[in-house]
Amino acid sequence: MIEKLKGFREFYPEDIRERNKIFRSAERISRVFGYEEISFPSLEPLDLFRIKSGEEIMRQTYSFTDKGGREVTLIPEATPSVSRMLAERKDIPRPVRWYSFQKFWRYEEPQSGRLREFYQYNADLFGSYSTVSDAEIIALAGSILNDLGLKGLYSIRVNHRGMMEKLLRQFGAEHPEKLLPVIDRYHKMERDDIEMEMEKAGLDSSRVRALEGILEKQVPLNGIRQFLSENGVEFTSIDEISWLEHVAELLSSYGINEAVFDASVVRGFNYYTGIVFEAFDIKGDNRAILGGGRYDNLTSVISGTEIPAVGFGMGDVVLELVMRSAGIWREENNDLRVSLCLTSVEFLKEVLPLMTEIRNSGISVLIPPEIKNLSSQMADAAKNRSRFAIIIGKKEIDGGEATVRDMISGEQYHVPFSTLKGWFLKKRSESDI
Amino acid sequence: MIEKLKGFREFYPEDIRERNKIFRSAERISRVFGYEEISFPSLEPLDLFRIKSGEEIMRQTYSFTDKGGREVTLIPEATPSVSRMLAERKDIPRPVRWYSFQKFWRYEEPQSGRLREFYQYNADLFGSYSTVSDAEIIALAGSILNDLGLKGLYSIRVNHRGMMEKLLRQFGAEHPEKLLPVIDRYHKMERDDIEMEMEKAGLDSSRVRALEGILEKQVPLNGIRQFLSENGVEFTSIDEISWLEHVAELLSSYGINEAVFDASVVRGFNYYTGIVFEAFDIKGDNRAILGGGRYDNLTSVISGTEIPAVGFGMGDVVLELVMRSAGIWREENNDLRVSLCLTSVEFLKEVLPLMTEIRNSGISVLIPPEIKNLSSQMADAAKNRSRFAIIIGKKEIDGGEATVRDMISGEQYHVPFSTLKGWFLKKRSESDI
Repeated sequence: MIEKLKGFREFYPEDIRERNKIFRSAERISRVFGYEEISFPSLEPLDLFRIKSGEEIMRQTYSFTDKGGREVTLIPEATPSVSRMLAERKDIPRPVRWYSFQKFWRYEEPQSGRLREFYQYNADLFGSYSTVSDAEIIALAGSILNDLGLKGLYSIRVNHRGMMEKLLRQFGAEHPEKLLPVIDRYHKMERDDIEMEMEKAGLDSSRVRALEGILEKQVPLNGIRQFLSENGVEFTSIDEISWLEHVAELLSSYGINEAVFDASVVRGFNYYTGIVFEAFDIKGDNRAILGGGRYDNLTSVISGTEIPAVGFGMGDVVLELVMRSAGIWREENNDLRVSLCLTSVEFLKEVLPLMTEIRNSGISVLIPPEIKNLSSQMADAAKNRSRFAIIIGKKEIDGGEATVRDMISGEQYHVPFSTLKGWFLKKRSESDI
Repeated sequence: MIEKLKGFREFYPEDIRERNKIFRSAERISRVFGYEEISFPSLEPLDLFRIKSGEEIMRQTYSFTDKGGREVTLIPEATPSVSRMLAERKDIPRPVRWYSFQKFWRYEEPQSGRLREFYQYNADLFGSYSTVSDAEIIALAGSILNDLGLKGLYSIRVNHRGMMEKLLRQFGAEHPEKLLPVIDRYHKMERDDIEMEMEKAGLDSSRVRALEGILEKQVPLNGIRQFLSENGVEFTSIDEISWLEHVAELLSSYGINEAVFDASVVRGFNYYTGIVFEAFDIKGDNRAILGGGRYDNLTSVISGTEIPAVGFGMGDVVLELVMRSAGIWREENNDLRVSLCLTSVEFLKEVLPLMTEIRNSGISVLIPPEIKNLSSQMADAAKNRSRFAIIIGKKEIDGGEATVRDMISGEQYHVPFSTLKGWFLKKRSESDI
């Protein structure tokens, strides 16, 4: 038998139900925030990604030459395609609020929280440069996590790249942008190596210690001014602190209380220009659940049109791990299912219209594909997780009444055909089904 | 700017709404028929498809060698992956009813109704060899089309490969299976070429004419016995006619009245063993909307385990064409949207909790990302298809009442904050919104 590829997943029904809940939740929250769904090809010209990310991207993509000689790749991320779609349609009134939920592929070594094929939700707000839009996109992220049942179980670590550059310059760094990649690896590097890099960048030893103090701690986002002040930052010239304070104030009005300031969050990609953020399980033993920020220059690189933008992406792999560890990943199916059981195939055509009527009210009805003896059919009904069996024999056909068996209690009821649908609807509305 | 690839699609919000209706409809109908969703990788080892379809498949797939030296392909169809999933899980009680809705890719020349990337719904019933399961899968197909609004606008052309082989043998063909590919192209080939092929297969000229008479016409599925009899078929030894008659009877009980007998439908794939069917727009100017049949031997080829199976696939490309030509492809968005308009950004944090409350009731609320003057905000609200604008200024904050403007009638209302959510819910429940 030919196995599936490493780092790829098959989803059986029990794997899919909760994942669909993620899709639906993201969709519903996006909609009420005014975001509309888009979707784009899964295969794109490789150049679309090369422009943004350089040759390095080649190593991590499923790229190849197609039968027409085109260099193509399975999409590793959303932003280039979304930026192109935006540039193609200048008629769409700004601001544009879009989301998508698609598969992406990266040729990386599979490990916990990272697969070669994964789903990713992406949301972007284009055409606005403001604290209000930054707050909206973070509120959208938090509202989705809350809707999934993670309220209080995650934190959103927020920072501002512009602010960090000014802070590092104030601390003595001549090329602060060169220190950001070091900060990005702060929690992964040895302390000695970090300090060496900071000194190399121009910080004296007291500034190195102050910066480490800042990077080490997370504080509530609205406490940023006091926190930085305590660590020797002079913020008279750093407008971005007020920017983050306003975002903090709005997030609190949104009811999102999970935002903290974390100076070590700077995001790996160079294209972020302003606010950046990542959400983590508060237990802290997983990768980022989601990440994003403001990228005001990227669309011009891809499409030639400069449009301010803020957005984030959220993969399904880490999210599933976090939901599982929080005990809110459910695999059972609570749909009301009933199984039809017949003493003869002859009766099938007579009761099919009734079964269709029940199905039309949203109840799942399983028809036996082969008419075995009644006890085999009842056993199948139990295996199929049917809550009820509808038993139809000559007596039932003649009397116009179904025999309905509760598969849990074993109780049997006689229900006239004419009220059978209503009987199931009533059962469904009772709290225990 | 880097364009998307030929034969691939971008979907803007207006393109996606109706497509999502297809997904939801297929999902809902599948569920009430007892089918559960599965999903599988978009990239698979090429061998998985080579086994079933031979080297020919190479020409029509996006196949390549990945960075680890594996021969892989973007999936061109569902059956091999689904068969593998079934074989891997012998614990799942039979019959198994599964559906999926995924993207597929074929390297073919794009044309009307055929693209290089498309969505396809697939449903299969595994583990049963019976008229009841054949009827169920066709009823599922018809019920989805009906639910989409196509009732009466399509026909399901049904045939039986086993019956055709017996019929052709009776007509003088020594190797009837060799004539099936000719019949598959019956409506595309020149009459002379068809007749030559039939004669070559062993049919005399009167049998050729009789066969042409059969292939030319469609009759209601329950009229098959009389129709074949009128065309000189002796059916004493052809059990499959009774099989199709029972399927016809059940379909009629299902309320599916679109099934016709069409001897020219034999499906291109050799792996079909019994009933075969295709649905077409009754106007007849499109490719098949969906197609499927019984394939009892295929799973053993792929997985080594023989399991009877009947199923079908339905792509989104032809379905969209048919829905558009039927005038039931809607692009407008009827969601209730409201836009917040503020005289000062200062008021935002005070009304955000109220906006969140309205959003929680399922109504979309757009927050202005930049606080321009009020008339610009009102213009944006109109451009955004908002049905109402919520206007908040100092007067409204002080009085605890929102000014709500109906963007269509121009009427303005003063609604206390405490009843604002209920006011919108009432408006939504009124028939005109």
